Amino acid sequence: MFSKILIANRGEIAIRVIRAARELGIKTVAVYSQADKEALHTQMADEAVCIGPAKATDSYLNVNNILSAAIATKAEAIHPGFGFLSENSKFVTMCEELGIKFIGPSAEIMDKMGDKINARKEMIEAKVPVIPGSDGEVETVEEALVIAEEIGYPVMLKASAGGGGKGIRKVKTKEELPSLFTNAQQEAKAAFGNGAMYIEKVIYPARHIEVQILGDQHGNVIHLGERDCSLQRNNQKVLEESPSVAIGSTKRAEIGEAARRAAAHVGYENAGTIEFLYKDGEFYFMEMNTRVQVEHPVTEYVTGVDIVKEQIKIAYGDVLPYKQEEIEFRGHAIECRINAENPQFNFAPSPGKIEELFLPSGGPGLRVDSAMYQGYTIPHFYDSMIAKIIVHGENRFEALMKMQRALLEFEVEGVVTNAEFQLDLIADQSIISGDYSTAYLMENFLPNWQEKNNSK
Amino acid sequence: MFSKILIANRGEIAIRVIRAARELGIKTVAVYSQADKEALHTQMADEAVCIGPAKATDSYLNVNNILSAAIATKAEAIHPGFGFLSENSKFVTMCEELGIKFIGPSAEIMDKMGDKINARKEMIEAKVPVIPGSDGEVETVEEALVIAEEIGYPVMLKASAGGGGKGIRKVKTKEELPSLFTNAQQEAKAAFGNGAMYIEKVIYPARHIEVQILGDQHGNVIHLGERDCSLQRNNQKVLEESPSVAIGSTKRAEIGEAARRAAAHVGYENAGTIEFLYKDGEFYFMEMNTRVQVEHPVTEYVTGVDIVKEQIKIAYGDVLPYKQEEIEFRGHAIECRINAENPQFNFAPSPGKIEELFLPSGGPGLRVDSAMYQGYTIPHFYDSMIAKIIVHGENRFEALMKMQRALLEFEVEGVVTNAEFQLDLIADQSIISGDYSTAYLMENFLPNWQEKNNSK
Repeated sequence: MFSKILIANRGEIAIRVIRAARELGIKTVAVYSQADKEALHTQMADEAVCIGPAKATDSYLNVNNILSAAIATKAEAIHPGFGFLSENSKFVTMCEELGIKFIGPSAEIMDKMGDKINARKEMIEAKVPVIPGSDGEVETVEEALVIAEEIGYPVMLKASAGGGGKGIRKVKTKEELPSLFTNAQQEAKAAFGNGAMYIEKVIYPARHIEVQILGDQHGNVIHLGERDCSLQRNNQKVLEESPSVAIGSTKRAEIGEAARRAAAHVGYENAGTIEFLYKDGEFYFMEMNTRVQVEHPVTEYVTGVDIVKEQIKIAYGDVLPYKQEEIEFRGHAIECRINAENPQFNFAPSPGKIEELFLPSGGPGLRVDSAMYQGYTIPHFYDSMIAKIIVHGENRFEALMKMQRALLEFEVEGVVTNAEFQLDLIADQSIISGDYSTAYLMENFLPNWQEKNNSK
Repeated sequence: MFSKILIANRGEIAIRVIRAARELGIKTVAVYSQADKEALHTQMADEAVCIGPAKATDSYLNVNNILSAAIATKAEAIHPGFGFLSENSKFVTMCEELGIKFIGPSAEIMDKMGDKINARKEMIEAKVPVIPGSDGEVETVEEALVIAEEIGYPVMLKASAGGGGKGIRKVKTKEELPSLFTNAQQEAKAAFGNGAMYIEKVIYPARHIEVQILGDQHGNVIHLGERDCSLQRNNQKVLEESPSVAIGSTKRAEIGEAARRAAAHVGYENAGTIEFLYKDGEFYFMEMNTRVQVEHPVTEYVTGVDIVKEQIKIAYGDVLPYKQEEIEFRGHAIECRINAENPQFNFAPSPGKIEELFLPSGGPGLRVDSAMYQGYTIPHFYDSMIAKIIVHGENRFEALMKMQRALLEFEVEGVVTNAEFQLDLIADQSIISGDYSTAYLMENFLPNWQEKNNSK
């Protein structure tokens, strides 16, 4: 096994990786920005190297400084966590050239799936349903108009190299298509140096259902079931659960197998997620995330598989210790993301010093992944997610009750969080009955919630 | 379901019960001594009633005040936790007379199993192996000498009403028997008002293996597998694990079924534990604990059963939701008890104010049950156990690595704990290999540890 790895990330995911590595007997190197000198990951790792000023582009995205830290500390591998450099194939190539193992897929596979036109092609080859749309790149407005007419409005114009919402436009009528197309294409060119566009039908409202997969270096690929992440605010997931209540056992087996087949088709290595939209009994490939995800703990709870440990073991060259038929699914898991933000002020970030803290750990079926401690100051430079509360119950009702208990216990003073918003969310009748789509939070729950909470 | 229950306890077990009740939608009443005004259980429950001065006999053992609190708050049931009144059948009778459901067995069954001579008789009837010894009460020294000769020295003289180490004497030779017998008998008479004595062969060193059982009010009894609690200091358990590495699958099935049969034979209701000694391939009934135990979480981890919730549901009259064959055992769990005590000063209690605290919650397979918070002052009146760290791994090695990781992360300032002692314990070669008995900690590990740590 590796004797030392570097974690190119911060916050709770850095802690998560440090813990997994430590349990595998691996030494850890943290990297930190000047703003993260007192951060828990900096303190907890065996070694810590400062990689630059607070701004992420100067530190957590600073490829040279991170690689220098890896070389200086003799780290044999780098775990990228999520966000930051986790889907940057150039960084992966540089790691490969330096003989440092990147804990994730190869640069080649990352590129293959990161190029969305190509990913669509791969999925069609693997007989995985894709969203009705263009057959490859759409080069001109004229072509776009023909295809949009064929699949029917509204349609989505998407940049093949897209990410972070850039190069994407929703088009409702043929009249607005020409200008939006040109617009999106220019934005994509500017952002990614690549203006290749394609078109997909709008599948909305739908369920966002994604499947966790694991592939080793020896051609073995398994899936770990699905997660329902339909509850989103501005395309950010808020609450995730597994299994999804939207699909029955037949569909579940089908979507799981489709994801497994897709990953196997591209020779995928390490942990990844295939995201689908599910509507009217049909699922459609949306995209692949070639990294571990924020919501991986819900899958860990229902399967008993430690995904982060498996990532490290796969990267080292181990054979997957499970066959597909050995993966058993037990109970129901839910994750609530706790953000330092103020729901009453349109979820404005609320960084600051944590004066008092009570994390509701304890009792069976509850896990809190966090990088907080009493006295810690949350910097304003990074993502506002400060903790994840994950519960596991025999069934969905028990999991919801446990989440309510945990959220009620959770206490932080000094910063405002969305914990009460989450409490209201899980007390909502549609959430309790499982009857929600990707539209529900923004179009139904949130307007009602804001009305109630402003009238207070 | 009950709408409100009272928890007649303090510390982490009170928190554990509050959490279970809350997840079942039940309101909770805490009782607290004057020393526990700021305790977490006092703060966390929906209501809290002061039941007297700090001394346990004035508060947590004050039957009248506790029952008054139950009546005043209209609590429908009382959970006794462990220790305090949990095995006090007079308290159970008083609850029964007041129409308050005691969450545990009836007074009758409690008495039946609390009288050790009777418990032995019941076990023999249930065809559960007992320790070779007297057939019922031994009334005279002469009788004792004959039986001791028969079973062979050393023998144990035990008071039938015994508890807390009172009325118990180890006898190595026939010369010392007469005085020790008279002595123990007098002590028992004074302590319990009952001088009935019996004799058992000394089974030492052995493995302490106990089986968790659950019985409902409808005659259904299941077992939840065994725990190995052989690591003890002065008869106090230090580290517990499940499954036991001392027995194979055949013996495991046998000991589990024996415990189930024993509980079924006496018509046992609620959670209980049958304790066995295991030596040279044979197991012997030692005693039954008619309450939930400190180490119940290791069983919760390997079975997925929430024992405290089941206790409450059973008390309400629910039918056990599991059949024996539906109980599946998964992975390996270990618990380390964290005490506020100083191992370097012969484990002297170390109460005081918790100036800083970091509980290692987070990541899969780790649970910390505790009633601590930063700023809390641990009073000196009660048990020194302040937290339980429980881990669950795919196998024993993974569980040990996880425990090491957790103990390394655990930080408390202001009081001294045995966390480092526990770290040394799980790094010990005999513990790692699973080769330890009830003698190991006191006779081998501790002398070595003390030598090393005094020479520092």
